[in-house]
Amino acid sequence: MANYRLTIQYDGTRYGGWQKQPGEKTPSIEGKIEDVLARMEPDMGYPVHVIASGRTDAGVHARAQTASVHLETRRTPEQIRACLNAYLPEDIGVTDVRPADERFHARLSAVRKTYVYRVAVDPAAHVFDRKYMTPLSELAARLNLPADAPWSEAALRQTAALLCGTHDYGAFVTRRTKKSTVRTVEHIDVTVTPDEIRLAFTGNGFLYNMVRILVGTLFEAAYGVRKPASVTACFDRPERALSGFTAPAKGLTLWNVEYPAN
Amino acid sequence: MANYRLTIQYDGTRYGGWQKQPGEKTPSIEGKIEDVLARMEPDMGYPVHVIASGRTDAGVHARAQTASVHLETRRTPEQIRACLNAYLPEDIGVTDVRPADERFHARLSAVRKTYVYRVAVDPAAHVFDRKYMTPLSELAARLNLPADAPWSEAALRQTAALLCGTHDYGAFVTRRTKKSTVRTVEHIDVTVTPDEIRLAFTGNGFLYNMVRILVGTLFEAAYGVRKPASVTACFDRPERALSGFTAPAKGLTLWNVEYPAN
Repeated sequence: MANYRLTIQYDGTRYGGWQKQPGEKTPSIEGKIEDVLARMEPDMGYPVHVIASGRTDAGVHARAQTASVHLETRRTPEQIRACLNAYLPEDIGVTDVRPADERFHARLSAVRKTYVYRVAVDPAAHVFDRKYMTPLSELAARLNLPADAPWSEAALRQTAALLCGTHDYGAFVTRRTKKSTVRTVEHIDVTVTPDEIRLAFTGNGFLYNMVRILVGTLFEAAYGVRKPASVTACFDRPERALSGFTAPAKGLTLWNVEYPAN
Repeated sequence: MANYRLTIQYDGTRYGGWQKQPGEKTPSIEGKIEDVLARMEPDMGYPVHVIASGRTDAGVHARAQTASVHLETRRTPEQIRACLNAYLPEDIGVTDVRPADERFHARLSAVRKTYVYRVAVDPAAHVFDRKYMTPLSELAARLNLPADAPWSEAALRQTAALLCGTHDYGAFVTRRTKKSTVRTVEHIDVTVTPDEIRLAFTGNGFLYNMVRILVGTLFEAAYGVRKPASVTACFDRPERALSGFTAPAKGLTLWNVEYPAN
């Protein structure tokens, strides 16, 4: 039995997220991959369990999700990859399979992740990427603002800076949890072009829905619905009501996961 | 009545091509745009006729198709653009509308066009662009070759060079025509990365299916099914049987159309 590390790309549009939901009819990425691996090695004697770096929500995409899996197989990593890509649907692609150290665990070993949220200021200029971006007008509508409501790049950047650091991000999570909600957000990079706003979040871990709530909070500040300084109160009291709305899933992509060099 | 120049982006997947086909149920890009403009100015007194730089085939995409149209309207170019984008489906986007010289004609005034054909060597690495690329294995299958058949980048480049110039491209057209089939292909840029082959064709005009047949011919040479030098015979006799197969539409995108600076 050997441990493998997989790098996976997916268009999350038609999935209920990474994780298998018992009783759910909506397919999951995890389920699709485990099904192929189980059929590849039917005599393995134990169920295939693929562990991802983290569970992406329904509708969220991944450019380089990372997963680990123990397999009893005589196939080479390249043969495993070829088998996966031959049987997976075309909206999931395995870009790399390599042997991993026995102790490698895609979730526990991860040291840093980057999520990218893409907002289309001019959706007409993003026809080819339309499934991977949220139109700015949709964010405005969530705040009951007109599609062409003015917004401030300075407020966006100022709020992004305030949301970084090591804090209790308990106000930025949908599901209640007893575990620690302290995380470190190293940086939030803001890139603004005439037709796109791109937010890149890098940190040591993100809670359930956290990036999408950070995005909603950032746009509340950008649109002047709240003051940038108001976000620091979220760190004092972990109450969901203090943070912003949850931005739509389709604009979010898990961009990259980093592990120690060995 | 004033003349306007439109720049249009579209995902051609679900369309029967640029042009309206009488009696056809499959929608056309031209039809969608003319419908919106006709409803925008119902009292214009003459039918809206949008002229494109050229008619893209069914399933072919455009990054910057250019069109001209005469309109009787009090709206500003920006208002025309906003109206089009508000009512067009999300797979068509108008990125620019500007006033044009009375003599500007999107087809007749065009001096240069670039088409890009994208081939996915590793489709698993191109999940997000999968609708805009053709898997290499599909081209191999068209030649009854296995998916992993070897191919030669040198032969591809050599053939690309031979296919450029001013020639009678009558062998590279599907529909017979009495008009001249002499065209100038200025250059065919070949870019090869581990997971993609990209062919960019620039010339003064392209015949019906011409780029797709050039792509098929190029891959016949790359796979060694024909010799690079064999393609020059196509210029001596304009017979369809001498050139290669027609590559699938979905990998093709009209990239850019150039006009005189004024």
